[in-house]
Amino acid sequence: MGQRTASPDLHLDLDLRFRRGRGEQLVAALRQAIETGRLRPGTRLPSTRGAALDLGIARGTVVSAYHHLTAEGYLETVQGSGTRVARSPAPRAVSERGPDPGSRNPWRHNLRPGMPDVTLFPRAAWIKSTQRVLNTAPAQALDYGDPRGRPELRRALAEYLGRSRGVVTHPDRIVICHGFTQALGLIATVLAEQGVGTVSVENPSYPHFRDVIRLAGLHTHPVDVDGDGLLPGDLRGRAAVVTPIHQYPLGVTLSAERRRALVSWAEAADAVIVEDDYDGEFQYGRHRVGALQAMAPHRVIYAGTTSKTLAPGLRLAWLAVPADWVERIANAKRMADQHSAALTQMVVADLLLSGAYDQHIRQCRDHYRMRRDQLSTGLAAHVPGARLMGENAGLHALIRWSPDGPAEREVLRAARTQSLGLAGLGSYWAGPGPNPPGLVVGYATPPRHAYTEALDTLLSLLARCFTA
Amino acid sequence: MGQRTASPDLHLDLDLRFRRGRGEQLVAALRQAIETGRLRPGTRLPSTRGAALDLGIARGTVVSAYHHLTAEGYLETVQGSGTRVARSPAPRAVSERGPDPGSRNPWRHNLRPGMPDVTLFPRAAWIKSTQRVLNTAPAQALDYGDPRGRPELRRALAEYLGRSRGVVTHPDRIVICHGFTQALGLIATVLAEQGVGTVSVENPSYPHFRDVIRLAGLHTHPVDVDGDGLLPGDLRGRAAVVTPIHQYPLGVTLSAERRRALVSWAEAADAVIVEDDYDGEFQYGRHRVGALQAMAPHRVIYAGTTSKTLAPGLRLAWLAVPADWVERIANAKRMADQHSAALTQMVVADLLLSGAYDQHIRQCRDHYRMRRDQLSTGLAAHVPGARLMGENAGLHALIRWSPDGPAEREVLRAARTQSLGLAGLGSYWAGPGPNPPGLVVGYATPPRHAYTEALDTLLSLLARCFTA
Repeated sequence: MGQRTASPDLHLDLDLRFRRGRGEQLVAALRQAIETGRLRPGTRLPSTRGAALDLGIARGTVVSAYHHLTAEGYLETVQGSGTRVARSPAPRAVSERGPDPGSRNPWRHNLRPGMPDVTLFPRAAWIKSTQRVLNTAPAQALDYGDPRGRPELRRALAEYLGRSRGVVTHPDRIVICHGFTQALGLIATVLAEQGVGTVSVENPSYPHFRDVIRLAGLHTHPVDVDGDGLLPGDLRGRAAVVTPIHQYPLGVTLSAERRRALVSWAEAADAVIVEDDYDGEFQYGRHRVGALQAMAPHRVIYAGTTSKTLAPGLRLAWLAVPADWVERIANAKRMADQHSAALTQMVVADLLLSGAYDQHIRQCRDHYRMRRDQLSTGLAAHVPGARLMGENAGLHALIRWSPDGPAEREVLRAARTQSLGLAGLGSYWAGPGPNPPGLVVGYATPPRHAYTEALDTLLSLLARCFTA
Repeated sequence: MGQRTASPDLHLDLDLRFRRGRGEQLVAALRQAIETGRLRPGTRLPSTRGAALDLGIARGTVVSAYHHLTAEGYLETVQGSGTRVARSPAPRAVSERGPDPGSRNPWRHNLRPGMPDVTLFPRAAWIKSTQRVLNTAPAQALDYGDPRGRPELRRALAEYLGRSRGVVTHPDRIVICHGFTQALGLIATVLAEQGVGTVSVENPSYPHFRDVIRLAGLHTHPVDVDGDGLLPGDLRGRAAVVTPIHQYPLGVTLSAERRRALVSWAEAADAVIVEDDYDGEFQYGRHRVGALQAMAPHRVIYAGTTSKTLAPGLRLAWLAVPADWVERIANAKRMADQHSAALTQMVVADLLLSGAYDQHIRQCRDHYRMRRDQLSTGLAAHVPGARLMGENAGLHALIRWSPDGPAEREVLRAARTQSLGLAGLGSYWAGPGPNPPGLVVGYATPPRHAYTEALDTLLSLLARCFTA
């Protein structure tokens, strides 16, 4: 008990009703407390024994969580004085595909994944479409509306998604949301209402989305991923959230055979599949893979977004849902916030109809492909001990190496000393590991002029780590 | 049982864990099924006995719910053949302060409350501000951001709310939401996490908000309202949602004495007060009442919105929260949808800073005051048996009369035959009654050119009902 009184007090809100997932909750709660600045750099954490007693969980769980967050660079262990929140530069404000809570970009170079180059946002086209919309839209469009969203946008999307992503849908079955986080939350709410207890999620995957699912009272069941995508034999429960085109974060594409196995599982288990097609517009090969949804439109909820194509700040995503899901999702949306913002929807509809959206995506695709090539060539030339994976699509690729190479946390630590924003693969795993090392490189994140310097910083840093 | 098999099947999702509120749930579920078209006009409902057996609730609850919805005009009773969904013109798509699920305005004249005249939306100013924002904003503003919202808007609002509504706050304590429905949902989520079980709500009040509170697992406790506002002695639980400036829907203003009593209750009960200042900008008297929040900034969550000042379709609201609520609400917002749409926020910030927002409100206020006067004069001249209440502020007023006058449901029925959209007071009460009759008249709803005709339709209809 002496150890406890010597330990600083740690308040964290954990849901202890279920044994499963406590470690993940602890990791998420600590990460968030550090990112939001509630736990400041240098703050001393309680001992693992003290924290276990305080929080009412097993000591091994705390040990794993501390280890995990140390690997991510959030914590650091100081010989003889326990565990502290890592000191400068703090890793706060950098959760990829998630918000920066308050601070401006804290990095000199930023290669964290989940963001497009927002300097490419088509400002002139947006202004033009806004003018066109406000010069022509009926006043009623500015009133309360359909919880599914503006009919103009749902019509334009049904056409676009069919044409560009092979999605089989109809404007009546599309629901516009304030981003994919909201969309997933609505789906999770409906699943919980229907008595679904467990949702399968890929492992590794984006931790924030696992948190969103669990917030609705559901369990998440991790499904491992290999070079052909998720392992269908691992699927459990009556729902699965998947990224078949470009697995997040590994970047692999679900093979045709695994697609069939996934859909067969859903049929047999009476399960729904949530297809998060977050970056499907950016496929660099000759053959582009269409949405999984087309194989089973009655089993798959397809999700797309403008977060990678235009800008995350727009908070615009869409679901194409099976017919029997329309009313439930629309009702959940109505209870969440009535419907999505009307003007934004009408402007995006105009961008789609005018061709400006497709044109913008083509330009971005060409540009990101060049950046990808630069990364690929540079890595092969300067870091022969590492290899690039998942580079055929999307805005990020994975750098992997043998566990005999440098420790992931050492690479992250070195990156911090250079003020280089970088995501380790470690933060995506469902369990604390040991997990293979890797870096998730968001090559679309920096503005155009800053990319080469950011990449050079990464490559010389890696070269040093691999020869050290 | 023979009656059951003869009865059509009725599927409704009710939460039967709590005895309390089942009647309200049934009313809400039926209303929604009718509004969304799931139950079509003319559809026969099961007998009260059959429905009670099917749904597993007391028959009296079903009787009350059917009666309530008949009074609202959603159902009709046909001698000898039971209860049906009311036939044309259907009352669908008309939930005030809520969305129109799919259909265009189904009314020839619309005096339903909760909407501004969206034809007044300042389109030119919006375009101008959009141009200014997109010509000057840093690209980073389009990326993921602070869950509380854009700093430009929070700074502009802290200034505006202090100046215009007397709110005591700071940009750090403001959280931008996608409309008040979302804001209330976030607050309810946080309250539930903190173990608060009961939230006091005014009676009558907007049923949708009671549903939103209950969706978070909380109970709502009705607090009666008289000419001085809510009765503080009725308050229960550790939270209260109130409309002190212009009670919704009665329109009364909370007296100074009651304000003090409300705050004293909150201090004694360690409760939080949610001040829904939905139409505080529209006060027509010489003396304008400031926000209750100023009396106890540490106890009151202040909520404002652009839904009445600009347009509901923007889905923009703001909370000014006590310091110890910032992190909890910001975290709930992050889990709900990361943050509100950035461009919309920046445009509204520009409207506030450029003075265009204040100018627009002044113009609207003058215009709505004229409409209010027209209603007041017309009612006195043509319907001496009724009186106007709550007309000193906002976009709606209440027409009340003695229970010896025409039945509310008869007036609503007559309005439907004229395709006049009108809200009875009946739909706002927490219990099925008997409740005093009344009409909640949204005099801001019609476009400018259509108001006089809508008003004339209402007045001659009322004159007929009162002399029949």
